[in-house]
Amino acid sequence: MPNRNNQILKNTNAKLLDEFNASIMFDKELYSQDIKGSIAHSKMLALQNIISNDEQKSIENGLLQVLKEIESGEFKFSLEYEDIHMAVENRLTQIIGEAGKRVHTARSRNDQVCTDFTLYVQEKTKSIQEQIKELISTFVELASKHTTTIMPGMTHLQHAQPINFGFHMMAYANMFKRDFERFCSSFERNNYSPLGSAAMAGTPHNIDRFKTAELLGFYAPTQNAMDSVSNRDFALELLFNISTTMMHISRISEELILWCSYEFRFIQMSDEYATTSSIMPQKKNPDVPELLRGKTGRVYGNLISLLTIMKSLPLAYNKDTQEDKDGVFDSVSTIEISLNILNEVIKTMVVNKDNMANACKIGHLTATDLADYLVAKQNMPFRTAYYITKELVQKANSLNKDISELNIAEIRSGAKELENIDEEIVSYLNLENSMNSRDSFGGTSTKQTLAQIEYFKEWLKA
Amino acid sequence: MPNRNNQILKNTNAKLLDEFNASIMFDKELYSQDIKGSIAHSKMLALQNIISNDEQKSIENGLLQVLKEIESGEFKFSLEYEDIHMAVENRLTQIIGEAGKRVHTARSRNDQVCTDFTLYVQEKTKSIQEQIKELISTFVELASKHTTTIMPGMTHLQHAQPINFGFHMMAYANMFKRDFERFCSSFERNNYSPLGSAAMAGTPHNIDRFKTAELLGFYAPTQNAMDSVSNRDFALELLFNISTTMMHISRISEELILWCSYEFRFIQMSDEYATTSSIMPQKKNPDVPELLRGKTGRVYGNLISLLTIMKSLPLAYNKDTQEDKDGVFDSVSTIEISLNILNEVIKTMVVNKDNMANACKIGHLTATDLADYLVAKQNMPFRTAYYITKELVQKANSLNKDISELNIAEIRSGAKELENIDEEIVSYLNLENSMNSRDSFGGTSTKQTLAQIEYFKEWLKA
Amino acid sequence: MPNRNNQILKNTNAKLLDEFNASIMFDKELYSQDIKGSIAHSKMLALQNIISNDEQKSIENGLLQVLKEIESGEFKFSLEYEDIHMAVENRLTQIIGEAGKRVHTARSRNDQVCTDFTLYVQEKTKSIQEQIKELISTFVELASKHTTTIMPGMTHLQHAQPINFGFHMMAYANMFKRDFERFCSSFERNNYSPLGSAAMAGTPHNIDRFKTAELLGFYAPTQNAMDSVSNRDFALELLFNISTTMMHISRISEELILWCSYEFRFIQMSDEYATTSSIMPQKKNPDVPELLRGKTGRVYGNLISLLTIMKSLPLAYNKDTQEDKDGVFDSVSTIEISLNILNEVIKTMVVNKDNMANACKIGHLTATDLADYLVAKQNMPFRTAYYITKELVQKANSLNKDISELNIAEIRSGAKELENIDEEIVSYLNLENSMNSRDSFGGTSTKQTLAQIEYFKEWLKA
Amino acid sequence: MPNRNNQILKNTNAKLLDEFNASIMFDKELYSQDIKGSIAHSKMLALQNIISNDEQKSIENGLLQVLKEIESGEFKFSLEYEDIHMAVENRLTQIIGEAGKRVHTARSRNDQVCTDFTLYVQEKTKSIQEQIKELISTFVELASKHTTTIMPGMTHLQHAQPINFGFHMMAYANMFKRDFERFCSSFERNNYSPLGSAAMAGTPHNIDRFKTAELLGFYAPTQNAMDSVSNRDFALELLFNISTTMMHISRISEELILWCSYEFRFIQMSDEYATTSSIMPQKKNPDVPELLRGKTGRVYGNLISLLTIMKSLPLAYNKDTQEDKDGVFDSVSTIEISLNILNEVIKTMVVNKDNMANACKIGHLTATDLADYLVAKQNMPFRTAYYITKELVQKANSLNKDISELNIAEIRSGAKELENIDEEIVSYLNLENSMNSRDSFGGTSTKQTLAQIEYFKEWLKA
Repeated sequence: MPNRNNQILKNTNAKLLDEFNASIMFDKELYSQDIKGSIAHSKMLALQNIISNDEQKSIENGLLQVLKEIESGEFKFSLEYEDIHMAVENRLTQIIGEAGKRVHTARSRNDQVCTDFTLYVQEKTKSIQEQIKELISTFVELASKHTTTIMPGMTHLQHAQPINFGFHMMAYANMFKRDFERFCSSFERNNYSPLGSAAMAGTPHNIDRFKTAELLGFYAPTQNAMDSVSNRDFALELLFNISTTMMHISRISEELILWCSYEFRFIQMSDEYATTSSIMPQKKNPDVPELLRGKTGRVYGNLISLLTIMKSLPLAYNKDTQEDKDGVFDSVSTIEISLNILNEVIKTMVVNKDNMANACKIGHLTATDLADYLVAKQNMPFRTAYYITKELVQKANSLNKDISELNIAEIRSGAKELENIDEEIVSYLNLENSMNSRDSFGGTSTKQTLAQIEYFKEWLKA
Repeated sequence: MPNRNNQILKNTNAKLLDEFNASIMFDKELYSQDIKGSIAHSKMLALQNIISNDEQKSIENGLLQVLKEIESGEFKFSLEYEDIHMAVENRLTQIIGEAGKRVHTARSRNDQVCTDFTLYVQEKTKSIQEQIKELISTFVELASKHTTTIMPGMTHLQHAQPINFGFHMMAYANMFKRDFERFCSSFERNNYSPLGSAAMAGTPHNIDRFKTAELLGFYAPTQNAMDSVSNRDFALELLFNISTTMMHISRISEELILWCSYEFRFIQMSDEYATTSSIMPQKKNPDVPELLRGKTGRVYGNLISLLTIMKSLPLAYNKDTQEDKDGVFDSVSTIEISLNILNEVIKTMVVNKDNMANACKIGHLTATDLADYLVAKQNMPFRTAYYITKELVQKANSLNKDISELNIAEIRSGAKELENIDEEIVSYLNLENSMNSRDSFGGTSTKQTLAQIEYFKEWLKA
Repeated sequence: MPNRNNQILKNTNAKLLDEFNASIMFDKELYSQDIKGSIAHSKMLALQNIISNDEQKSIENGLLQVLKEIESGEFKFSLEYEDIHMAVENRLTQIIGEAGKRVHTARSRNDQVCTDFTLYVQEKTKSIQEQIKELISTFVELASKHTTTIMPGMTHLQHAQPINFGFHMMAYANMFKRDFERFCSSFERNNYSPLGSAAMAGTPHNIDRFKTAELLGFYAPTQNAMDSVSNRDFALELLFNISTTMMHISRISEELILWCSYEFRFIQMSDEYATTSSIMPQKKNPDVPELLRGKTGRVYGNLISLLTIMKSLPLAYNKDTQEDKDGVFDSVSTIEISLNILNEVIKTMVVNKDNMANACKIGHLTATDLADYLVAKQNMPFRTAYYITKELVQKANSLNKDISELNIAEIRSGAKELENIDEEIVSYLNLENSMNSRDSFGGTSTKQTLAQIEYFKEWLKA
Repeated sequence: MPNRNNQILKNTNAKLLDEFNASIMFDKELYSQDIKGSIAHSKMLALQNIISNDEQKSIENGLLQVLKEIESGEFKFSLEYEDIHMAVENRLTQIIGEAGKRVHTARSRNDQVCTDFTLYVQEKTKSIQEQIKELISTFVELASKHTTTIMPGMTHLQHAQPINFGFHMMAYANMFKRDFERFCSSFERNNYSPLGSAAMAGTPHNIDRFKTAELLGFYAPTQNAMDSVSNRDFALELLFNISTTMMHISRISEELILWCSYEFRFIQMSDEYATTSSIMPQKKNPDVPELLRGKTGRVYGNLISLLTIMKSLPLAYNKDTQEDKDGVFDSVSTIEISLNILNEVIKTMVVNKDNMANACKIGHLTATDLADYLVAKQNMPFRTAYYITKELVQKANSLNKDISELNIAEIRSGAKELENIDEEIVSYLNLENSMNSRDSFGGTSTKQTLAQIEYFKEWLKA
């Protein structure tokens, strides 16, 4: 964006306006959709006898040549043609002569822009979905290796309960699965063709909008021409879906940053994905998750931009909506690179099981298990059970141990009421047992975690 | 919101913290969901033999009494109980004794909050959908009365092509239908029960999460306990759906404001929904659409608030998310009242057909029809046809007429090439004919508009 | 932005990370500030005997050569050097050898980035201020030509009171003056040099931060090194100031769009700044104000992006802040081109005085003047006065006239109580007199408007 | 906010509109400003002989009685009177009779609302400034106790260089000082009185706006009546200033949350400001900083709301701006309670010096000092120095020590080139020495930190 505007400002004042109005410097992104749309339109025009088959052939071949020129870098984009649609049409006319202009019969720039933009959003929706699935698959893979890797589950960034790392990773698999589904449903809702809506009111030509819809992979044409050229809901949905996905990415990024700090050392990022110091090989800056976290701001901004632009716009077309694309292109390329890089980071990081396990020994994570045991098995009133637990915790502190590390003798000497406690209490204070005891559906036990993984493997196959 | 905080600041410093932490002043909104959730939980606990049937009965009756007390206004909300969940549980215990505490077996505040909040969001989603359907129905009704009411279709707020008012109204029916569908799909995606996720890792108790899910109308329990208590996607989706709907409301509001200005006078708002001046009865301030337009800012703000809150939050629960509800409650009540009021405004406004028709006579809206005619029927080259059209427009201007008002003699004297033009040209310049000529699928012709209306009537029935 | 990311995605996976991390594709914008900063730093190093005078000379000449290479387009920016700072330093070292690296003594990338970015923000603040002043001057010029051009002042987009067009233009002069002042004060508050803060804690070298601050035009060095490298307030203030200015631009744009609609026709935009139709010369699409209005969304988005990025960042440097620049560059170039274009639009538009004057005859704008007259001069109770006014308005309506157009006979026959009304009443109903009667300080009378213009002319000179 | 709307929805449909339009349920917040404004206005009216001195006295006494009634809670706010202005005026008229209506001579609701709102914003600006100063004072106090408390300075959340805790606290003092200054300059820029602008064009009455400005503490009246009633810049500036301040609060909150995690244990929050577990006394949830962090989202949302509302509004008054207040009231009460609570948290937290000191021994923080020493004192080439440093780090790792803990023998055996190294090297590797060596202006040395503290103490006195 900045580049474009800068370039403008350096020009002489005379050209300023053309450049201000032009969108070609960013909407050239839509070249393939524009050409695809025009070919479909020309086919329909021929089928409806609005143009001849020869004209259609000529138009199609010409457009394919333009496509080739653009993809080879041969094509020169110039501000002279206000937007990508004019640029393509103009080049087409250079190649095949005046007949090139006939492709514009029975459509207007308004429905053409909407069609191209919808095609773009739908294509990107599909490819982002693929990337998300890839990422989920990585989380599932990682989880399946760590269903017995014990770590402290946190609330308020405080150790709370022992969980396994696989379970934690599956939380992310679930988040990104919702993202996947959100893209699915926005695709479904918006897969309708605006082509043939013309300026805003339809056209007198005898066109077949169902045919162009079909050729372009849409389910059907849109219902109302005026709404069709005024509508940007599909773009807003994409921006929101990307924002929510980036929000999830920012959460895993935050955890990665914490986990590779000196204080946590739960993971070690691959050398490739962290900046290292030449002197201190153990020092690694988590640049990548930090950038991912930062890029969340960017996509939020793009969402609020388009919401602001659309607010209070009277129907039908207004030039304000020319500002709709830059932010969408930016959010799309941001999420694409972010999903790609995050996937690599997760795949290549090393999990420090020992550090995770050791961290569980801080915070007396099984204190609640003890209290529960006393209530359930010893029939103690809550209040008494809690009091005793507190005493044992103090005892453990005085021994510089975690209660999960106490032997039966230490436990029995921890409180008067524990003097004759059954030896099985030791196993209740055990971290791994505590983790596995949470065996309700969706819980952290290894068994439940494996069930979740199984479910996701099936889902990924489908 | 302001009230709550103000109240806080007026208290002595000693209580400041309790009040800062408390959420009861806004989350009391969730009382019915909280009670509903607890009853379902108690039923499951009894079925699983975790509590006795008698205990369950007692709990259920106690909760129903609390519900009655709250709905009658008898219940006193106090900051003493930090949130609605504590307030209800505490009152329950007052009523039925210590057994009241057993309802909290095998769940935690974390999953309880998520369950209540999800129930709220799902209930509101349903009721907003009903309101949207009502509004669509009003647009369809209005449209069906105006399929031949001609008006200038605008682009860039400039007269562009003659359309009918029914067609314009159907553009809004289409927008709000997408909104309806968006609420549908967020409901589907999020209709899963977090209950039983406990603090974040599940519970050792032998609970049946499928049972509580079923009792509460959810499709199934959520898959991962940690994700379940960390997740606020469902609330974000609601906020986004409301934002998009309000954006559409802001667009019709903008048009209503324009249309009832002295300059347009296309509609007249009902006296009920406009502020009138005692001296000048014809002067009406469109306060309602202006407020609707303004309230769009409010719901955008609530969306960005929650996106900001959720960014970079490590798993699982953090107190930050206590800030998630206020904005959701506010956006929900805003959209509810907005849909209600807008519906009334649309229903009661008077359409000034004459003014709309007269406006079509400004701007030579059928100039394009003439050019098209010359090309299509007279086989003229584009360039010539355009030149002639321009001449005729100038002629019409000199006569102080719109070209749609010219008679055949005036037309024939408008340009040398028109000297012998067939009389049928008059009908091509006719505004109504021009409107009806745009007869492609989704176009503005009366026929197409009626087809759209028919489609919507069927859809509304379903 | 999109370009950069796209480019990245087309590369092979191997380079992906380098490219993800690199910022050079956008921070090259800072080349001149980077070179300026390095020259100042080298001068100080020499003065403090940290490097020799010869080394300093060599560094300075080398840097000036790099500057020339960049400005001539000779310099090749490559992803190989992560950012502009590395790119410049590397080229310097190619030119002058290892001595080039000595310029980096006693500073770090962290303070260097902050210094360059602050210099950029301060320079742009100044140049935007100049543009705002230019625009104010245009409004004042225009206003001074229209202090007697009567038009309807509006509330709720309804005619309310007669004002003059100059007065309306001066409302904008006042808005943009506040914008100017806001840029002034952010400049003042942020004109401190972070250079020498090093990584975050200062440096062991015997540097003189006051000297570099002075050489770079800063008032003094910043007070705390850690804050200096963590701080982005200066960028946020710029983004907010630009947002507020663009909001003002969106308001005048909205009015221009309304005013050049067929319904208003208060102004005519210059052919240069509106898209015209080849057939209908009178039809002009206000593309420029629509784009200006749309671009407001863009700068709002950039503001929310940086606010989001900065939220909850721990001290000191985090890579997230690499995302701070793109949005700032974009907002800066957007406001620059917007101010430039708006200025031209205002300068070149034609004011349709007659249409404005005619519009005042719709809505009985002097009805209040009549009521006031009856109360003040005839000592009538309010209620009676209002009742009579209402009657006269109805009379005028029946004559198809505005009450400002009634002659004394018509007035006297309008209500029993007016039968003997003094002839001076005609002048009270006169639109121009009504406008000039509002002669309080800041009011719309020609006299007050001229006083405002005078005040601004003085201010502009200063 | 939710309360208000909910209340509305529970009413019968008949009242719906009145309630939708009414603002009294939130703008009652402005009661004192409204009364203050009316008293000043009445005084001016009397001085200008527009009302009599007796009328003025009666009005003033009546208004003071209304004030008393409101502050005692006696006053009943009712939706019947649309807003606070009507409610006050109506009660005044009940008390003193028809004369009460004369206070509204020569003003309109439009300028009255703007005046009240500006007064509110200015008063709150002043009181927030006081709170910020209080908070800065707390940071300075704390810093002055910790100028030798060594801790690891971080970049990328990785240990980077030894700093002192006082220096870190002074970074926050500097941030909040900029916030203070930002409120100062918005106060200055906006301290102008809109009173007397009337509906938008001034008034025919012979008022003295300079007098009311003076009586209300404004510097002068505003310059243009139309701008005055359309302007909400002052409210936007307040919202932005609060957002930036909350962003700073979110940064210290994030650090507090990290610092009281089990992994860091740098600080211990006071029991009062953290939720503790009854069983595990050492476990403390940092609820307060988490809520502070969350509330940042809220104030960002309020900023974006008002920016959205103001975008594209035509002049002069539109009902949309009735939506301007709720968000401002909410942001004000949020920042007030947040500053208050944060101040207490900082004051009462315990700093764990030992843990901070121990953390410095992880990460070889003085490795750079060694390399610098070898270059500077031993005249080694960079590359050699770095190589040697790396070797010593590996040696230290093998001894399970940090290089700052090595004795001279261990150092000399670390690398061949170090065999004869001078004993002074030990002191260069010392953490405290390293910290104190960064003695440039604004650096982390104890000396520089004390200088910063001194500067702030002077500033706070002024």
